[in-house]
Parts: sequence; C-alpha cells; structure tokens
Amino acid sequence: MEKKKQSENNLGLVKTQYFTFAHPPQELKLESGDKLGPITLAYETYGKLDKDKANAILVLHALSGDAHAAGFHEGDKDPGWWDVMIGPGKAFDTEKYFVICSNIIGGCKGSTGPSSLNPKTQEPYALGFPIITIADMVKAQCNLIDHLGIKKLLCVVGGSVGGMQALEWVVLYPERISCVIPIATALKHSPQQIAFDEVGRQAIMADPDWRQGNYYGQAQPEKGLSVARMIGHITYMSEQSMEEKFSRRQKDKNYSFKFGTDFEVEGYLRYRSDNFVKRFDANSYLYITKAMDYFDVSGDKLLPKDKKLAIRFLVIAFKSDWLYPAYQSQEIVRQLKIRNMDATYCEIKSSYGHDAFLLEVEEQTHLIKHFLNKTFYGYNIARNNEI
Amino acid sequence: MEKKKQSENNLGLVKTQYFTFAHPPQELKLESGDKLGPITLAYETYGKLDKDKANAILVLHALSGDAHAAGFHEGDKDPGWWDVMIGPGKAFDTEKYFVICSNIIGGCKGSTGPSSLNPKTQEPYALGFPIITIADMVKAQCNLIDHLGIKKLLCVVGGSVGGMQALEWVVLYPERISCVIPIATALKHSPQQIAFDEVGRQAIMADPDWRQGNYYGQAQPEKGLSVARMIGHITYMSEQSMEEKFSRRQKDKNYSFKFGTDFEVEGYLRYRSDNFVKRFDANSYLYITKAMDYFDVSGDKLLPKDKKLAIRFLVIAFKSDWLYPAYQSQEIVRQLKIRNMDATYCEIKSSYGHDAFLLEVEEQTHLIKHFLNKTFYGYNIARNNEI
Repeated sequence: MEKKKQSENNLGLVKTQYFTFAHPPQELKLESGDKLGPITLAYETYGKLDKDKANAILVLHALSGDAHAAGFHEGDKDPGWWDVMIGPGKAFDTEKYFVICSNIIGGCKGSTGPSSLNPKTQEPYALGFPIITIADMVKAQCNLIDHLGIKKLLCVVGGSVGGMQALEWVVLYPERISCVIPIATALKHSPQQIAFDEVGRQAIMADPDWRQGNYYGQAQPEKGLSVARMIGHITYMSEQSMEEKFSRRQKDKNYSFKFGTDFEVEGYLRYRSDNFVKRFDANSYLYITKAMDYFDVSGDKLLPKDKKLAIRFLVIAFKSDWLYPAYQSQEIVRQLKIRNMDATYCEIKSSYGHDAFLLEVEEQTHLIKHFLNKTFYGYNIARNNEI
Repeated sequence: MEKKKQSENNLGLVKTQYFTFAHPPQELKLESGDKLGPITLAYETYGKLDKDKANAILVLHALSGDAHAAGFHEGDKDPGWWDVMIGPGKAFDTEKYFVICSNIIGGCKGSTGPSSLNPKTQEPYALGFPIITIADMVKAQCNLIDHLGIKKLLCVVGGSVGGMQALEWVVLYPERISCVIPIATALKHSPQQIAFDEVGRQAIMADPDWRQGNYYGQAQPEKGLSVARMIGHITYMSEQSMEEKFSRRQKDKNYSFKFGTDFEVEGYLRYRSDNFVKRFDANSYLYITKAMDYFDVSGDKLLPKDKKLAIRFLVIAFKSDWLYPAYQSQEIVRQLKIRNMDATYCEIKSSYGHDAFLLEVEEQTHLIKHFLNKTFYGYNIARNNEI
C-alpha cells in the first residue's frame, strides 16, 4: 500500500526541454552592457497548463541545481532535486498546477554558460562569457515564460539563489506574478556571504588547471573546485546537524597520525566534493557566485514606490540557517510591510541549516499548500477540508 | 602626557630566546609513539622572577602566533601580539609577575617544526616531521619551565589553541599550576571546527607547489596557504564585525563585471592572506590544525577523578565568537563544577567574534587583574583600592 501510494505521488519519467532565443541581432542586453545570444535555457514542466494559463508556477533552483526538479530521468535511480515538494498531491501539486523549473544562464546544466560554444569563435566561451547578474538570469527566464504563452505566473518560488531570482522577478515583472515564495534567501549578500563566495572563487582560480578559465577539453580545476565546494558544504549545514550526523566519530579507532582522513566529517566533505566536481563546471561556479554577490534589492529597490501591487508573499526562513540567517528573511518582510504588501513570514524550527529548504518537507508542504490554494482559489479551502 | 604614559606602559625592547633540549638519546616521546629531538623552543620573558619563583605566568599563543607576545623587537614598528595585555600595569602586570611566552613545536617561529633541519638527514623535516599533539606541545613547554627553575606556575593562560594548551597543562601537570585562564577555546573541536581545518589543509595540499610537503628552498604553496588563511579570517570575525568593518562597500563606485576585487571585504581577505603567506609555513599550518583537531579533553579527561586539586579557573568566552562558541566554554566550566573546582565563567559581550580575545582589552584586563591578584595575594586587593 505504502509503495503504491508513493508511486502515485511520483511524476514518473520526465525530460528536460530546451528553448533557444535571443538570436543575433536580437541578443539579450545584459546589466553589464554586454550582449548575449543566442541563449538556450534548459527547463522542465510538470502537470498541465490550464485553459486560462493561470496555474503556472515557476520554480527556481539554487547554486548547484538544475532544471530537473522532479520526476525521474530515464535510467536514473534518484529523482529531481525537489521531488519531495513537486508532484501529485505534494506542496506544488501537479494535479492542480503547471510547474516549470527553469535553469539559469551562466550555469552548466544545459543552459548557455561559460562552457557553451561561443558562436563567434566556435570555442567554449570560458572567461569570454560576460559577467551575468540575477536580473540577467530572470530576463532570460521571462523569455521562456513568454514562449510558453503565460502572461501571469501564479507563483514564483525558490530557495537560496533561487529565492534571489524570485525576488528579482518582483523587481522586473511585478505585474506578471500573483504570489512569491522566497525561501532561505536575502535581499543582498552580507560581507560574510561575499567573503565565503570569494574564498571559493580564489580556491578555483588558485588551481593551475584553471588556466585563466581555458581548461575545456583538458583537466578541470578539480582540486580548486573541490575546496570551494567543501567550504560551501560547511555553510549549508548547521553546527548542530554536523554534530548529529558526524560528531567526532572516526574512520578508525585510533588516530592515523597522518594527514589522511581521521574523522567521518572529513570523509564526508571529500566524498561530496569529489562527486560535485564530476558534475559541475568550475567557471559556472565563478559566474553564479559573482551574480549572487552583485545581487542587491535592499531598501526601496524591491518594490516600486508609486504602484500598488497585489502580489502575495510567503517568506520562509530556518532557525539554524547561518548562511542565510533568519534576520535576512525578516528584512524582506520588513520591506514588504513598509509598502503594505500582503506578506506572511514563517521561521521553521529546523536543525538542518541552509539545507533545510531541501529537507524540511512536511512543514514547508503545509505552509505552501495553503498559501497557493488561497492565492489560486481566492480563499482558504483548507477550512472546507478539501486538502 | 598621554605619550609618556604609553611609553611607561611599554616593555621597550625585548628579545626572543631559545632553549634546546631532548638531545638524543633523550628525545621527547610523542603521543604518536614517535620520538623528537633535539627540540628548540623559542620563548620570551617579561618582568622578573621573584625569589620564591612563585610569580611566573605562562602565556600560550594561537595558531599563527609566536613567542613575541609583548614589547618591541629592535627595528619593529609594531609590538608583540598581546602587548595590550602584557606590560607594566597591564592585565599581566610585569611589575608584579614574570611572564613567559612559549612558542609551540610544529610551528615555524623559531621552535622545532616541519621547516627545521632534521639532524639525521640535514634536510628540512617536511612531512618527515612527526604528527604532534597539544599534549606534545605542552610536554615540550614543561621542559622549558623546568629549565627556568620554576616548580609551580602562578598561571597558565591562552586563547584559542593557546587555551587548549592551557587545558592540557591541567591534564598533564595539575600540581604545577595555581590558576588557569582558558579564553575562547574548547575541550574538543566540534565537527564544524574540524571541517574548517580540513578544508584549509585540503587547500594547501591541493597546491602543486606543496609537493607533498617538500617545497623548502623552492616556492611555498602560497596560493593554497592563502585560501586556508582566508577561510580562517572569515571564522575569526563575526558577521556583525564584518558588517561594521566592510558592509557592502565597494572599491569602485560601479561593479567591475570582472572576477577582480569589487568589495572591500574581498580586498581585505586578499591583503591579509598575502601578508600571512610571507610569514608562515604551510606545513606548520597542517601540523598545528591537526593537533587542534586531535585535541579532546572532554568528559572526565580534564581532571583526575580521585585527586582534589586547588587550581582556580577563569574561563572567558565572547558572545559573537562563532568559531569557538560560548557553549564550548560553558562546557569547560560544567566539567570543572562537576569536580567542585573553583571556576569563574565570564562571557564578554563583544562583536569582534573569535578575534575578541586579542581586541577586548579593557574587559579582559579588569577580569584578569582581579583574578591574578586574588590567586597570588590570596585575597582580593581590589577592595583595598590597591589596583
């Protein structure tokens, strides 16, 4: 029974799709002043777009995520990165909503980025790829939404960098969104967040295999990227979750008295980062973290002063998240309340740290289901026992 | 007047001294089972040892510190690393006390470490240097204290790794100490602390200039060591102190749209780490961080079960220190209280993070002066207005 229930909740096989636009001379004009085109965006969709095209939810991913948010790719053992949240009956209920997950430009997961071929040179862009911003990512995504014929998104949602994109959607296209769910994110990076990103970038650029970004067709700067990812992993977990997961447990009973792996936490960091370098491009790590550091929609930059907007907000933070601490989510809410926006703030008690947005399924499901229902149906159907 | 007062408070010119012992076949037996000798320890002393040799205070330094804790070296513009705390009338009053600062084995500041010549090969030890522990460092220091003819130390004090050494003195030589001041330290590293150390080590070992440790006489693994130090710097500051010092201030008004230095915090990290690699040996970074990770005097390991000890403790923590959070100092106090030890706990409200032990002079001076007076004179002379 349990198994059947689980398979009913799954989307089954899904496929990544690709949309190419901004063909020269209609390149996308970037915030830097540079132009980029053609641009391909990888994306996936789950559920069906209704007749009014009013049930579309745009899901935006974090630094190392991709368009494959839910369901299974042919032959894969593991589903997409947010499968726990997207599917029939789940938080983003694909029986009600049409869910789109769009990859970002600058990445390395099927969308145009530094590892893509520069049409002008027929070589990978490498550092010839222009510096992109969160706004550039969102402008590209808007082309995809136009392409899908959607005038207004029911919801834009994302955690971490995905949350930054969601906030940037508010800045750029406020009239095209009904509600927004920024999760474990910020209006801008603090100097500590910039510092962690910068050390990651320095680790990559310190690797001689990086070769000023021109390593394609040769060895990746694996060691540098691995160090960057290890730093990331420490910041994604909380002190408590590390204590619970590893404590000071050792690989062997006695210390090695060598510079090997003595503690389980060391083995974990190495294992996870070794896996990461196989599936991620070091230059994309540089471009995306730079976009994160440049992002700043603080103060009155988030909302237009003179327009009354009817966007609803559900802002979610996690108590043990020290990379994107709760005060940063509270600051989002503060800015929304100053403008009399309809904003709900939820701080979930979780020990998982920043990773909580991928792991705290039950609490998030509860919050998001109700919030979407209220936005979509105009009232809280939970009261009618329909959920 | 102000200037005169300041010069009166200074120790003036000081010199580092060296003590060599453990000559073969009397090598120091290490915790790993290996032997090390001869061993040289760099140290400095300030003030005068009294007739009873009862006024000696041993100061122990942090990861990148050295024996030069106070006063000026000939030609130097800056005094020793804890000059604000050591000198006439200061917290460690050199008009009353004889202050010794001992360097650690494994380091690169004049004491025997991986960059020292291995007498057997007449080459630098490099990774041929045995893995050392905090206990090994303390055993070496005890040889220095014997050499100085001191039977009982009035006080052992240190912050961070220096605090670990102070605690290890309690474990190894409890009958030779009157009081201990562990500052911003822990009974053992948490997995998060181990993880930060491990990433630093991985950054160094990822640098091809590291050459399995055999880089002496050639280029240092500067880039790897620089990344390790940047990670360190982030953890030494608090989020708040970074915000106060840098916020999101930029080097130039506009973003560079390059992978250069946009934010002041990035420039700071690079500047500080560039300086660090000129004065620190990468292998020493590996050895000392490993010793820190191995350190564990938690539970009943700190104090003997059956002996009643008359050691007084002043345990100091800082509210914004997230590298050695206050709960770790509270755990030290808890262990002391379980054994009915005379222990005082002070949590100083500071925004400086872990660096606070170097910066919060006034509060620490107040606490330490009274604590030492009470220990040394047997009563609190502050009440008699003698301070």
